Amino acid sequence: MGLDDAAVKPHEQLASILAGDMEAVGVLIRERMASEHAPRIPEVTAHLVEAGGKRLRPMLTLAAARLCGYEGTDHVKLAATVEFIHTATLLHDDVVDESSQRRGRPTANLLWDNKSSVLVGDYLFARSFRLMVEPGNLRVLEILSDASAVIAEGEVLQLTAASNLATSEEIYLNVIRGKTAALFSAACEVGGVIAGAPEAQVKALYGYGDALGICFQIVDDFLDYGGAGDGIGKNIGDDFRERKLTLPVIRAIAAADETERDFWKRTIERGRQEEGDLEQALALLAKHGTLDSTRATAIDWAGKAKAAILELPPSELRDVLHDLADYVVERVI
Amino acid sequence: MGLDDAAVKPHEQLASILAGDMEAVGVLIRERMASEHAPRIPEVTAHLVEAGGKRLRPMLTLAAARLCGYEGTDHVKLAATVEFIHTATLLHDDVVDESSQRRGRPTANLLWDNKSSVLVGDYLFARSFRLMVEPGNLRVLEILSDASAVIAEGEVLQLTAASNLATSEEIYLNVIRGKTAALFSAACEVGGVIAGAPEAQVKALYGYGDALGICFQIVDDFLDYGGAGDGIGKNIGDDFRERKLTLPVIRAIAAADETERDFWKRTIERGRQEEGDLEQALALLAKHGTLDSTRATAIDWAGKAKAAILELPPSELRDVLHDLADYVVERVI
Repeated sequence: MGLDDAAVKPHEQLASILAGDMEAVGVLIRERMASEHAPRIPEVTAHLVEAGGKRLRPMLTLAAARLCGYEGTDHVKLAATVEFIHTATLLHDDVVDESSQRRGRPTANLLWDNKSSVLVGDYLFARSFRLMVEPGNLRVLEILSDASAVIAEGEVLQLTAASNLATSEEIYLNVIRGKTAALFSAACEVGGVIAGAPEAQVKALYGYGDALGICFQIVDDFLDYGGAGDGIGKNIGDDFRERKLTLPVIRAIAAADETERDFWKRTIERGRQEEGDLEQALALLAKHGTLDSTRATAIDWAGKAKAAILELPPSELRDVLHDLADYVVERVI
Repeated sequence: MGLDDAAVKPHEQLASILAGDMEAVGVLIRERMASEHAPRIPEVTAHLVEAGGKRLRPMLTLAAARLCGYEGTDHVKLAATVEFIHTATLLHDDVVDESSQRRGRPTANLLWDNKSSVLVGDYLFARSFRLMVEPGNLRVLEILSDASAVIAEGEVLQLTAASNLATSEEIYLNVIRGKTAALFSAACEVGGVIAGAPEAQVKALYGYGDALGICFQIVDDFLDYGGAGDGIGKNIGDDFRERKLTLPVIRAIAAADETERDFWKRTIERGRQEEGDLEQALALLAKHGTLDSTRATAIDWAGKAKAAILELPPSELRDVLHDLADYVVERVI
């Protein structure tokens, strides 16, 4: 790869290769988020949709289908479905997390109210199901409806695990597999399925999405303790303040001496946080090297994603997906 | 009908005729509300499921299938799907309405929290979609996913119409068709579809469910101003306090003189309610006879439901569904 190529980030390369398909996805999303009777619905949805995330998930579906040689148009419907599911979960997440900012803008629950976020999220879920029915492929329906259940399950698990110091790495993995990786893996898998790809390729696509999603979330959780001001739209320490047990903290608790354990008990379990506690938490993560080890774990998962995607036949898209895994961890290197 | 028969209410007759099927629905619901990782999910769901509503909606699906001569088992899956969708919407409704009581018990949002209600509702939605995929009937999937979207749309419309004195009877009809009738009509329609019934019968079943659902909701809205202590688990005036524009109030506003209009503006539009306002509202409904005319409208819809169901071939189930429409309005006679 030359120097010029290196400047173009993999998700931008992906967007450029898939520009025509993504255009069609955008048109479909705008069309299907409309509501005959309730104008509040497209208002709320547009606020989020037009904030313009990277649209990584629908691009994964399109890329997976294309790299398996798909030449039809149903992958556009599935990509829009995936983005609708994602948007619906964001609306509900912001209610559950009582967030006031997302992608650097005020959240819908702040601009309108929690009620609108709950109900518009429900509408988008329903619309996503309606859309995924259209290609008439039952396996696709199974994969995406299972993924939706696993997402909700992961969120509930996160809710009940919050502030619980006994949260293990295994539970953490279940949480992030649910809340993040399930949609990544389903997005990739349905691309392969709709393309009629051989089972081994579908499995590899699933494995790629799963590992990429896990990697993505671990990096996010890392950045919450170490990535201020990089434009991720999060403030350092949000997870700490919300008493979420993420990997850096889980590992610091596992390595804690008695005094440190008391600190975590007070701040996370009982939620009695004081001035200077975030700094103390950061010092403990540094002392036990858990940000470093969390980064190493993320790199591990990026490696698994790369290995999985290399099981697919060589193509430009495959190489971009390969590089995308590196790019996801690059944010923490 | 003899005196003995008259004592058995139509929904009890329905429950008795469909006892075997409903048993299977109950087993399936308990099985599918489980969660491998998040025990909070079945806890919250069981609280609601075991509060034991009349399970009218799943019975409609079973009855529709059976009265079209269906002898398979997929109708049980669809009935459980319908009940899951209903349970999910109840969980979200209680969050949106900030309710503290349902079916005479504390709501899940009160016992646990809003977060759990939102996320467990999402899980049930996803599980309902997973379940409805199993019979492998695409038309059923279209009907039920459309109904889910219309339900959410109706709720959003209700939210934005609340406290708006310009709410017309037409908007009201759209709201209740969404929030209530859409699931009744879909429940009936999919029963006919899964049975492979002729198109005219499927259409009649849809019409029956639509009219029954509208009738059901109008009666509910009537009882909110006139049915205290009859065990519906609601307090008189809840809708008034929540500034919901329901039929009795819409009609009273349409007939209001200037002073009365000021009253409605203050209490509903601006929400400045004082001691004695509910009594004054009730007096205005009485003055303009809008509880009577609301009752008459409900009876009209019951008539439409009865006419629709009579288009189906004669059978015991058909007659019970016919009587069910009378029973729904009987609550207000």
